[in-house]
Amino acid sequence: MSSVGQVITCKAAVAWEVNKPLVIEDVQVDPPQAGEVRIKILFTALCHTDAYTWSGKDPEGLFPCILGHEAAGIVESVGEGVAEVQSGDHVIPCYQAECKECKFCKSGKTNLCGKVRAATGVGVMMADKKSRFSINGKPIFHFMGTSTFSQYTVVHNVSVAKIAPNAPLDKVCLLGCGVPTGLGAVWNTAKVESGSIVAIFGLGTVGLAVAEGAKTAGASRVIGIDIDSRKFVTAQKFGVTEFVNPKEHDKPIQQIIVDMTDGGVDYSFECIGNVSVMRAALECCHKGWGTSVIVGVAASGQEISTRPFQLVTGRVWRGTAFGDFKSRSQVPWLVEKYMKKEIKVDEYITHNLNLAEINKAFDLMHGGDCLRCVLKM
Amino acid sequence: MSSVGQVITCKAAVAWEVNKPLVIEDVQVDPPQAGEVRIKILFTALCHTDAYTWSGKDPEGLFPCILGHEAAGIVESVGEGVAEVQSGDHVIPCYQAECKECKFCKSGKTNLCGKVRAATGVGVMMADKKSRFSINGKPIFHFMGTSTFSQYTVVHNVSVAKIAPNAPLDKVCLLGCGVPTGLGAVWNTAKVESGSIVAIFGLGTVGLAVAEGAKTAGASRVIGIDIDSRKFVTAQKFGVTEFVNPKEHDKPIQQIIVDMTDGGVDYSFECIGNVSVMRAALECCHKGWGTSVIVGVAASGQEISTRPFQLVTGRVWRGTAFGDFKSRSQVPWLVEKYMKKEIKVDEYITHNLNLAEINKAFDLMHGGDCLRCVLKM
Repeated sequence: MSSVGQVITCKAAVAWEVNKPLVIEDVQVDPPQAGEVRIKILFTALCHTDAYTWSGKDPEGLFPCILGHEAAGIVESVGEGVAEVQSGDHVIPCYQAECKECKFCKSGKTNLCGKVRAATGVGVMMADKKSRFSINGKPIFHFMGTSTFSQYTVVHNVSVAKIAPNAPLDKVCLLGCGVPTGLGAVWNTAKVESGSIVAIFGLGTVGLAVAEGAKTAGASRVIGIDIDSRKFVTAQKFGVTEFVNPKEHDKPIQQIIVDMTDGGVDYSFECIGNVSVMRAALECCHKGWGTSVIVGVAASGQEISTRPFQLVTGRVWRGTAFGDFKSRSQVPWLVEKYMKKEIKVDEYITHNLNLAEINKAFDLMHGGDCLRCVLKM
Repeated sequence: MSSVGQVITCKAAVAWEVNKPLVIEDVQVDPPQAGEVRIKILFTALCHTDAYTWSGKDPEGLFPCILGHEAAGIVESVGEGVAEVQSGDHVIPCYQAECKECKFCKSGKTNLCGKVRAATGVGVMMADKKSRFSINGKPIFHFMGTSTFSQYTVVHNVSVAKIAPNAPLDKVCLLGCGVPTGLGAVWNTAKVESGSIVAIFGLGTVGLAVAEGAKTAGASRVIGIDIDSRKFVTAQKFGVTEFVNPKEHDKPIQQIIVDMTDGGVDYSFECIGNVSVMRAALECCHKGWGTSVIVGVAASGQEISTRPFQLVTGRVWRGTAFGDFKSRSQVPWLVEKYMKKEIKVDEYITHNLNLAEINKAFDLMHGGDCLRCVLKM
């Protein structure tokens, strides 16, 4: 019996309250309305942004909600007027939409599509400003327009990338967030040139993707900075050529890096979300041209600061979201690159669990040994 | 009798102490050593950077010294090995050197030549780390490698731009600092495109040069922001199309500008040196692509700050020094542009005085009616 047009009851991990363990519930998922797509999620990974909202530090966080934004699945059905995908298409939900019509998309200067932000920012769908998730009639908020910790989810048509049907969904789910963010920070935001010296603060998944991006861009030195020296072994496989642990030095880390590089690096990337490290990342850049890219997400209310002299003498401070990749246009391209073995994906997956084990997966993520944990739905 | 190789005694305005009136003294100016050029200064203008160091707020300030860095004159003699200019050449001293050999010059990415910085930063010449100025044997420090408040000065060969001999020195002296800084911030640093919306904070000489630069770049709207509403009349002549006085609004100025521009400006320029205004200038930029350029020089020790979210959502924060113009290569080109009436210069000159009246000139500069005061030496 077809589920099209019907409410689907399936398993989902619900965040009922800040910091309380997620609960696997039977959730009712409404059929997609006009301009919406219902996706059967097959695999989802966990990302620190999920944990950030769950922790209560995200002022935009709404509860109860279904978290998750790095996943892959198959379109179950589409609402009226949806031409972008159809039932059976293999897809990656995209928390950063791409409508190709709004002033952001048309600018050619940014990937920050504004089409559905008013709804996704408050956990609902554009059409009726309501949720498609409920439990016995009680609405459960969406999260980042994706809510992939559910066996079925509903997203806007501008928030779904159709990918090659032969791509392994248990791997390419990672192309929904962390890996593109790191690669794109190098390729699109900083535009690192061959021969550049690069510094990366924080060697988690995003930092390692920055390293891989820098390596493929032809960087001559890729300096990894992390307070956990064990990370250097893995980091070398992704392109890090030198390692610095700030705990092993008395001087400020920016000074260490400046001394190591005859004046500073050409490009630096902050992949942690720590405003003090963001400052260090800027200040370790070379006078005259060094560019620092903020990739990590800082806690709400925190501020970055530096002396304006740092900028007047030629350093550039910028940031990136989803690596400046245009999601619907470029995620399929990243999948192709993975299929051609031009970019790593498998290597970031350190753990595989089932949806029922999601709380354990978050525990693993907070430990130092986990890069990405992929959940089978 | 030729002065070549001889000590020249001439008039100079000496800053003996922080904030004490400058004193016109008979100063001994040594002949240029190898790689040095002695210039007969004919006209000098005053700039806020002179006043900043004089005020004692500049931690690098050294006293007694001869201030001044925006001037024009004629080469009196050159030291050994100087091929760049010869006696009789019309020149503009350049506080930002250009050696064409150091890693900064060779990078092609910055104008911040490092060749003589170690000496000019501490008020002396490279050859012997001593000053060429003295009064009865007591050394007087150089300033910014230029010290143009003297009828004769000695500069490094990498710090002098040879210009067209028919250019009026009483006008083109302004091309030594403020006007290029503003024009270059638009043309070189921000690279403003046709149709852009631009905001300028502070409508002094530099801010007006930014306006002129934006106009010639084809900006569709040039919003001038100043707490002195009288400045709008002049500003319109330089290209400002709209004026906002923050004192006439209750909301933060960045919010006013965002509301006026459907989301923010494409480019903003801070031409004051106030760190709070620098923040406003960044935050009035459009999400996704807005770029803010710090042009003003803040007091030592002050810091800029913002939420990192401002950068992660696509704004870019950068700065400029001498408008990213390569001094020896491009100042002559700016002089040519002035001679062809492609850029304004005369219009910035609101006052003309003699060297003896220099203290009065500084008083005028601190008033609201003066853009540039040119002193005849």
